[in-house]
Parts: sequence; C-alpha cells; structure tokens
Amino acid sequence: MSIAQPYLLFLGDVTDPIAAKTARGIALWRPDSCVGQLRLTSETVSLGLSDLSLEQAKSKGAQTLVIGTANAGGVIPKVWQETLIKAAKMGYEIASGMHSRLADIPELAKLEDAGQTKLYDVRHYDETLDVGNGKPRQGKRVLTVGTDCSVGKMFSALALEKALKELNVDAQFKATGQTGILIEGSGISIDAVVADFISGAVETISPDFNDHDWDIIEGQGSLFNPSFAGVSLGLLHGAQADALILCHEVGRPHIRHLPHCKLPSISVTIEVNLSAARLTNPSAQIAGICLNTSSLELEEAQTLCADWQEQYGVPVTDPVRFGIGSIARNLKENF
Amino acid sequence: MSIAQPYLLFLGDVTDPIAAKTARGIALWRPDSCVGQLRLTSETVSLGLSDLSLEQAKSKGAQTLVIGTANAGGVIPKVWQETLIKAAKMGYEIASGMHSRLADIPELAKLEDAGQTKLYDVRHYDETLDVGNGKPRQGKRVLTVGTDCSVGKMFSALALEKALKELNVDAQFKATGQTGILIEGSGISIDAVVADFISGAVETISPDFNDHDWDIIEGQGSLFNPSFAGVSLGLLHGAQADALILCHEVGRPHIRHLPHCKLPSISVTIEVNLSAARLTNPSAQIAGICLNTSSLELEEAQTLCADWQEQYGVPVTDPVRFGIGSIARNLKENF
Repeated sequence: MSIAQPYLLFLGDVTDPIAAKTARGIALWRPDSCVGQLRLTSETVSLGLSDLSLEQAKSKGAQTLVIGTANAGGVIPKVWQETLIKAAKMGYEIASGMHSRLADIPELAKLEDAGQTKLYDVRHYDETLDVGNGKPRQGKRVLTVGTDCSVGKMFSALALEKALKELNVDAQFKATGQTGILIEGSGISIDAVVADFISGAVETISPDFNDHDWDIIEGQGSLFNPSFAGVSLGLLHGAQADALILCHEVGRPHIRHLPHCKLPSISVTIEVNLSAARLTNPSAQIAGICLNTSSLELEEAQTLCADWQEQYGVPVTDPVRFGIGSIARNLKENF
Repeated sequence: MSIAQPYLLFLGDVTDPIAAKTARGIALWRPDSCVGQLRLTSETVSLGLSDLSLEQAKSKGAQTLVIGTANAGGVIPKVWQETLIKAAKMGYEIASGMHSRLADIPELAKLEDAGQTKLYDVRHYDETLDVGNGKPRQGKRVLTVGTDCSVGKMFSALALEKALKELNVDAQFKATGQTGILIEGSGISIDAVVADFISGAVETISPDFNDHDWDIIEGQGSLFNPSFAGVSLGLLHGAQADALILCHEVGRPHIRHLPHCKLPSISVTIEVNLSAARLTNPSAQIAGICLNTSSLELEEAQTLCADWQEQYGVPVTDPVRFGIGSIARNLKENF
C-alpha cells in the first residue's frame, strides 16, 4: 500500500476537535504533504490550513483526499459521500482510517473498478501475508513499546525520526496503525491482520535493508494490556528490534478502560519486553524512556526525568516538553 | 457455531494417511458421534468405520457431512464437490476444516441461501467479537501450553477431559483450532480471528459458568515460536487459567520449520507462561507436564517422567504411553 501524496485533508462537518485527531497528526508531522483542508461547513473544526475546494486543491497538486476524522456511529454520512464521489470522479485517490469501508459505498467501488480512483481503507488489511519466521534481517531497527495503549508510541517514533534526521542519520518511520499509515502513506494496521500473521506483517513492513540507517517501527498496545497483548508480542517478535524505546504516561491510574488492571512498573515492563524481544534479536537493548508528564508541573517533570535517567541508565525525556534528542544521540552513538 | 452431530466423515479420494489426520481425531475422540465414513474410491484411506453412502448414513441419523481431510493445493476437487452438493440437497449440513471455503462453491452457497443446508468453514471466523477485558470470570479453567507448535496440546486437552470425567469431574473441552472444533462441534479458530480480538475470542468460548466443574481450553502455538507467539499470548490472557498443562516433545531439535530457533528450556517455559498468565489470573499454577516421548525407549521415558516429576514438583507423563490420570487427579484434588 502506498498512498499518493500530497493530500487534501477532508474534515467533513465534524465539530469535535478530538474527532479530528488523525488529520491533526498528519498536518503536524507531514505539513509539506498537505496542500490544505476541506470543510463542509464554517463550524467544522479547522487545522489552520488553507480552506480549499476540490478544484483548488487539485490545481495545487493534491493527489489524495484523506478522511482525517472519526465518524459518529461508524457510518459515513450521506453528505460526506457526495464530496467523496465527486473527488473520485475528478481523479483523486481516497484514503480513510475509519472502521466503515470506502469500498462499501457502491458508487466509489464502481469508480475504483472502472480505474477512476483508488480507495485505501487503512484500518483494514485484505492482502495475503506470510507468517513470520524470525530470521535475522539486515539493517538496524528501533521499536516503541509501552506500559499501556495511548502512551505516546506513535508520537515518540515520529519525533525520533525527525530528531535522527537532524543528526544526519537516515531514519524511516514504519507505520503499524491507521494514523501512522496516513501520515507516512504506507504501512499495515497490525491489529487488523489475521492473528496468525502478526509477526509476518511486521517482517513485511520492515524487511532487509542497507540503503538507510534505521527503521523506526511504531509500537501498538502493551504486553500488559489483556485486550491487546497478543498484537504487542507479535509486533515485538516481528520487529526484531536492536533498540526499544519505552513509553509511559506518568500518573495513569490503571490500564486504559480496565479499572481492575494495574499498570506494570517500569522495571518489569523493561524486563518482560527485553526478554520477549531477545527471542528474535538476542542483542536487543533499551535505548530510552519517553514519558508523558502532562500531569506534572514542569519542575517536577524535570526532576522525575533526571531521577529515572539515573535509575535506569538510559536517557529519559518527555518528548513534548524536552524533545527526544537525548535518545536520538544514544541511538546514533551507541547502537 | 454449533455443528449438529452425529457426523458422516468424508474422506474423498485421499490416499495419504497424514492427510486424514482430522478425521482420525474425530473418530478417536468422538466415536459415538460418527455413524461411519464415506470414501470415493476403494484406495482411499480408511478409519476402520463402516463405509456408508449418503443415503445409508442419513437413515442412521447422520446430520453433518464432515470433510476430515486436507486438500492438496488448497482447492476442493470437482469430484468431491458433486458429493457435497448432493449431500446439501439431501439436507446434510456440511463442515470443513480446509483453507478453501465451502461458501466459495457457488452451488453450495445457493443451497445455504435457500435454507437447504448450513456450511461451517471452521478454519475461518467472520462473526463479530468483543475485545477481551480480562475481568475475573466464574468457573475453573485449565489451558494447555507448549514449548512449540504440534507438541500435543489438543491431544492432552482431550485426554484430560476424558480422564476427569472418569473421576466424576464434569469437564468440558473448549476448542481453539479446526480439528478441535470439528471434534467438539463448537469453538473458534483462534489463529483466524482479527489480531485485536484474540483474547476476546477466548473469553467468548469460555465465559462465566457454574453448571460444571472445569473448562479445558485447547492451547495453540507457543510463546517461543516467533511465527505465532502473539496468538499464544492472547490465548493465555483470554483463558484466565487457574491451571496450565505444559506440553513438550522430547528430542525436538529446534522450533518447528525454523532451524535457527532453539527450543526453550522447560523451566523458562514454565516461568514465562506463568508470569504472563498471572496478568489475568494471579493464582495461575502449573498442574502437570505432558511429554511426547516417542523418540525414547519405554524405560527411558519412564525414567525421564520420574526425574522431571521430582525436579518440577508436578505430575509428568506421556499421555499416549502412560495416560493422564495423574494430572487429572492433581486438578481434582488440589485446584
């Protein structure tokens, strides 16, 4: 899957800023790949990009209309469909991270069959995969892992890509979730593949390479989240990572959505992830810890990072507040 | 999914005994559910059951025609299709553990749409599932785990069900793979669900219960097999097992199909499985070890079982050679 850039970001008539999280991520991490935004009403949330019509964006080179919002109730609203169909007829490709499939809109499916457009439902994966084999591959890999879901694994991976590039290290982000795929234009939604192929899917998105320095693989879930740990373990084995970055939200009271599940300690999280990672890469090491310290005052956060850096012997940072340069330098110098 | 029994076992024109493994398992574990076998030629492998035509089996009460063989090249041969279509027209339900789907044979799909038959493609799973939540459930559960794939996890689970029943303990086998599902008539092929739903699928097949004593959950893969460990971890979390039975083939040189992957030691396998199992059941314990000792002389096997029983402090047996009564008694008396 390779989604043509640049994008026109479609925001529909969404008024809840949280529902536009995906579009915001794309605009934040790939500003040069976004010619503008398309909003159906003046009340629709804005990303601060130029408001463009389909025609205006086309003339500026936009190739793909990206639905960067969640849709309430899992259905693509009729009023959105008109815009999508018009775009497809104009030769736009269309990409969506929603649960409901573009291909289930009959007019769009017909236009795709006729070769007029391409539809990318990035939350789904229908292609054939091989099962993983764990054979050593060329190239260096870093994977973000976490104490739980939604602790900054995608953010840290993208921040690390940027920081490594600033150090003249040639790094490539490898996406494993729908937002990451739309940002990068390629990848596989790991949690959407058939269970037998989890590690195989990761081996596919990060194969042997020697034309750049690092693959930075986006992690998913946590070995300690009983809903999704199978995905995380398959990802860990498939990634065959030389370096792991541990992500954690300071002060989270329990595993997300599961008040009966405690968060694991940092040391147990490191130990269990390293032990599992070493099945396919015996020299896997922790290269840094990324914290979301938004629940702390700035000074408390600085102190915590310094204390944990001492305790765990690796760079510890909040990438939002303090950047991720320390971890990037560690990767460049010590791996 | 609940497949109507008794069965007529369809062997097609298969001449390789290994290709009839599934049918053999059904005949072995559920002899009372098999009215006979249907072979297309006299060279076809035999299970030693009565050779019956569709008509004869129908008159003996057969409800489902079960395809108990692998099909070469993944295609259901034309000569088999004629029999399947005839059976469907006679009101048989049809169940298959093959990769290719019965529902992809247009005549069969039409007969199902018309309400004339039901088709069970047990290697696939298309229904909606919830994600797992790890909440404590009523009832006692035992799960078979392994050092690798194909080390006797299904066999041990079925042998344990039988042995527990002989001790007047009310145990139910819960199937997670295609052969197990055909044997039991229900279950979910765990490796065929979408990755996000592995643990949720296991929670579905073994929900809260208080009407019997034990659920015996069939394990899959191994935490140490880099192809499938994600499935095994989700299964472990979803099973919420009170007791684990460790299965191992003595003398296996390396992980199946992967000569570069060493087999884990017994003690590491126990430690890593217990540690992961305790995420959803803090009191999980090892209840026994089942060995495939077919590479050893009888006396060597006896000595090994005795030595390991001493070393690991739980009953150790080869269920084929020595039965599984010792482990069943341990479950009855100590859990």
